[in-house]
Amino acid sequence: MSPVPPQSPLLDHCPETLPASAYYDAAWWAREQGAIWARNWVCSGRYDRQARGTIRRISVAGDSVILLRDGDGAYSAFHNTCRHRGAELCGADHQGHSGRLIRCPYHAWAYDGRDGRLVSTGFATPTADFDKSQHRLVPVHLMDWNGFIFLCLADQPPEFAPDMGVAALDNWPMRDLVSGHVLQTELACNWKIFWENYNECLHCPGIHPELSDMVPIYRKGIMSEPESPDWSPKAGLQPALRPGARSWTMSGQPAGPEFANLTQAERDAGHNFVTLYPTMFVVAHVDYVRAVIVTPLAPERTHLRAEWLFLPETLAAPGFDLANVTDFASIVLQQDGAACEMNQRGLHSSRYQAGTLMPQEFDIYKFHQWVLAQMETDQG
Amino acid sequence: MSPVPPQSPLLDHCPETLPASAYYDAAWWAREQGAIWARNWVCSGRYDRQARGTIRRISVAGDSVILLRDGDGAYSAFHNTCRHRGAELCGADHQGHSGRLIRCPYHAWAYDGRDGRLVSTGFATPTADFDKSQHRLVPVHLMDWNGFIFLCLADQPPEFAPDMGVAALDNWPMRDLVSGHVLQTELACNWKIFWENYNECLHCPGIHPELSDMVPIYRKGIMSEPESPDWSPKAGLQPALRPGARSWTMSGQPAGPEFANLTQAERDAGHNFVTLYPTMFVVAHVDYVRAVIVTPLAPERTHLRAEWLFLPETLAAPGFDLANVTDFASIVLQQDGAACEMNQRGLHSSRYQAGTLMPQEFDIYKFHQWVLAQMETDQG
Amino acid sequence: MSPVPPQSPLLDHCPETLPASAYYDAAWWAREQGAIWARNWVCSGRYDRQARGTIRRISVAGDSVILLRDGDGAYSAFHNTCRHRGAELCGADHQGHSGRLIRCPYHAWAYDGRDGRLVSTGFATPTADFDKSQHRLVPVHLMDWNGFIFLCLADQPPEFAPDMGVAALDNWPMRDLVSGHVLQTELACNWKIFWENYNECLHCPGIHPELSDMVPIYRKGIMSEPESPDWSPKAGLQPALRPGARSWTMSGQPAGPEFANLTQAERDAGHNFVTLYPTMFVVAHVDYVRAVIVTPLAPERTHLRAEWLFLPETLAAPGFDLANVTDFASIVLQQDGAACEMNQRGLHSSRYQAGTLMPQEFDIYKFHQWVLAQMETDQG
Repeated sequence: MSPVPPQSPLLDHCPETLPASAYYDAAWWAREQGAIWARNWVCSGRYDRQARGTIRRISVAGDSVILLRDGDGAYSAFHNTCRHRGAELCGADHQGHSGRLIRCPYHAWAYDGRDGRLVSTGFATPTADFDKSQHRLVPVHLMDWNGFIFLCLADQPPEFAPDMGVAALDNWPMRDLVSGHVLQTELACNWKIFWENYNECLHCPGIHPELSDMVPIYRKGIMSEPESPDWSPKAGLQPALRPGARSWTMSGQPAGPEFANLTQAERDAGHNFVTLYPTMFVVAHVDYVRAVIVTPLAPERTHLRAEWLFLPETLAAPGFDLANVTDFASIVLQQDGAACEMNQRGLHSSRYQAGTLMPQEFDIYKFHQWVLAQMETDQG
Repeated sequence: MSPVPPQSPLLDHCPETLPASAYYDAAWWAREQGAIWARNWVCSGRYDRQARGTIRRISVAGDSVILLRDGDGAYSAFHNTCRHRGAELCGADHQGHSGRLIRCPYHAWAYDGRDGRLVSTGFATPTADFDKSQHRLVPVHLMDWNGFIFLCLADQPPEFAPDMGVAALDNWPMRDLVSGHVLQTELACNWKIFWENYNECLHCPGIHPELSDMVPIYRKGIMSEPESPDWSPKAGLQPALRPGARSWTMSGQPAGPEFANLTQAERDAGHNFVTLYPTMFVVAHVDYVRAVIVTPLAPERTHLRAEWLFLPETLAAPGFDLANVTDFASIVLQQDGAACEMNQRGLHSSRYQAGTLMPQEFDIYKFHQWVLAQMETDQG
Repeated sequence: MSPVPPQSPLLDHCPETLPASAYYDAAWWAREQGAIWARNWVCSGRYDRQARGTIRRISVAGDSVILLRDGDGAYSAFHNTCRHRGAELCGADHQGHSGRLIRCPYHAWAYDGRDGRLVSTGFATPTADFDKSQHRLVPVHLMDWNGFIFLCLADQPPEFAPDMGVAALDNWPMRDLVSGHVLQTELACNWKIFWENYNECLHCPGIHPELSDMVPIYRKGIMSEPESPDWSPKAGLQPALRPGARSWTMSGQPAGPEFANLTQAERDAGHNFVTLYPTMFVVAHVDYVRAVIVTPLAPERTHLRAEWLFLPETLAAPGFDLANVTDFASIVLQQDGAACEMNQRGLHSSRYQAGTLMPQEFDIYKFHQWVLAQMETDQG
């Protein structure tokens, strides 16, 4: 779901979807790993997730990457493979405290943790043809956006989230927020099925009774008033949540004080979405922010990490009711997961070649165009 | 095993079998799924297995198919995939009661359960370019033969069981029979290995002691008298079962009254086989009928469903001894299953290219010719 | 590790390793199975492992092979597949006592256990076109070297272990030795990774503290004195083991009497290696011999069988301490296994293309040249 558009976004025709094979074919999957996941910025979580002076392994587009945070809080990232004979530099059991050097446990080759320079080849004595500068660790690009760490495997990283409306969070105190709850789950579907489900609300009346009660327009299967045929720009926008509700919580009441700098439109919207293909979406409410990170594990396996972010004083307030906040979106996410898996299963029919998008599925159409453009511009 | 032939059916030479790869190669398997299993009539069980007013999922040639039976008892079948974005129409947990409409649980598209017409697109409002008649459910052909439901995925189904001697059951009250017992098992072998084992009795003396005791000619490794070198058409045929035995039961005695309309030859035969490649064989005895349905699950995994059919009065008779009937063929089937798996394992030798058929394996030869003809005439 | 070379074996440059795909690619693996494992002599264990008058199944290069030992102690070996329709001749549960004939359990075809001649086709009566001599069991070549049984699947077996220094064991009473202990383990790595680890000692200081204590030169990351820059042939060789130690045991003391016919150089060496690519290495100490058999199971799964061999009188001597002997190399092998798996995991990085060998890794270089030569000369 996108920020409320200024005029009717409905499609004027019913286009075809991506072909069925895009959702399970191993070759298509492999191309996507290179053309989309290894080329774009991928979120690895909050910057404060990792303690100073530690090393951690993460997976990016199937590659094992080591993420280091030094004593000053600065991050660096490298591919988790030694330049000598390819041994894993950091094993699953070797995460944790880290000094200035990364030392391979096999033959003790040592690298500088900040820039990846090869510092020592252990007991080996290379001959003159050996060029240490050609045996640095392979770096991974890294950036911090609103307190989230993003990585990019590409040699030349693309612009971060062009045309994805990232300014929408400018009035939220993003860097001050801390994690209050994490929900992780694995879905038996292709990662694009999850994004397609995210991009339309035609399924809301049937799949999301609680959410459709919270956001009355969802009962009509649309995401915002401009999608309604009887709406005109002059009419403006009504508050999105049901009368009396302020946030996506079980009670509809905020989890704590509302953020100070929001505009009235941001408060009326009730939920403010930022969509960062392919890796994450963020939903900012008046009282808390929710981020969902999408990670493809296999053509038909997708990992989700949902994280609820709060001001520290909200979490610390007497009587703070965490379940009242987290149950609501957890229920919705569980419903979406079941729908995604149901969709995935049906794609395997020998008679399903492609589907047909409805006018209300304009955001799926844009997502498909984005995917295809990524694939076409891949040089790999 | 086939109905008793009128003259010696022995091969006059020793031909080669199918190549080893036909039994485990993934590409060969995929070709067969299209050329054989998706083009031929496949049995899904007895017509009375499914209650009126219900929907059920079955698998045909790897495709998920929904089978509906309406309140009048009429069947219809469709591919289990929505024409919108491909969601599964009927989940494993959603089988059971069904009304006139099939409604997709994702976006509430609704189809007529009798003809598959698209009746509603739920909350979606298609544009003028959308043609409902192009978005019907994809039908699956269906027929009832002797109380068995057969399905065919092909657009143009072939003639049912040509040259397979289906008239052999004409004197049995097939539509009156009901299920008394079902045995399901999964074999670690290719489906063709099961049919090859079925098609010769050279293995009977070594593998089937009980069966060879019941059918004396099997002790010689042949299936019928005409295979014997000292037999001539003038000699006629002796009763097949051991003296005093009337049916394939542990005791040799019938499970209940003998069927009324059988000829003396049918009674003397003791077992009357109808073979319906690739899906099923039926063995009709004087007192009951047994059907075995073969379903390939993977190149080296095959599912069997054996079902024992009786007149209702036989099942209801005081003193009816079900185990006396079902133990006999269950023992034989278990022995065949073990032999099939032993055969399959040995095919993987790098030095096994193909085998050599013996003159007594004439029915395997015909089966191989049938398989090859199916593959050759495939346009897919 | 190789026998002590007469002069510095260090490489004069730093060559590239094999490409990363050589260690996990399924196609590379399949080529190796044919070009290396199905063409070379593969060790199946000690000749006295199998009792007289028995049959046993083993796996060679993925092929199931039956190994027979007759009443006189003579061995024969054949592919485990019947020439009729390919059934497995000997099932996992059918190993054990064996007579003169090998009889297929499916259709009772019988073969002579010494030469594989087809003796009987059971109940089948072949026609004149059937040539029994064309339906013999497929033999597997077999030889006995120092009390080890070796098999070769090739039609024309190569010379046994050319240039692999097999004479090094001539002073050991190899045929008199019996098994005292067996250790089997499976590693999550390619088989070549195991051999590479075996072929260098740069990892010894970091990975093998106990071994580096036993063999002081290993603390420097080298395998023998001539690798040291300050060594010259005139200097000769010092005893390899730490002062006072005589063998690779926990205590450093021999497990029993020293072998009678060893030279002083062999005693000083402390360990005498014979490397038989691709299948086995043998380490002969003054008191016992250790053999390690390598079996690839999959591109990233390798089985190891380590066996400790002693004179019967050593095993029978009062106070003989088996653990004192076997613990030492077991610890080293466990350390090597963990290192191999760590190496394997790191090879999957998309940025690891190939590694760089150090001058001390001369034996890895020779091993790579051997592998590549095998692949190039394959006609398959």
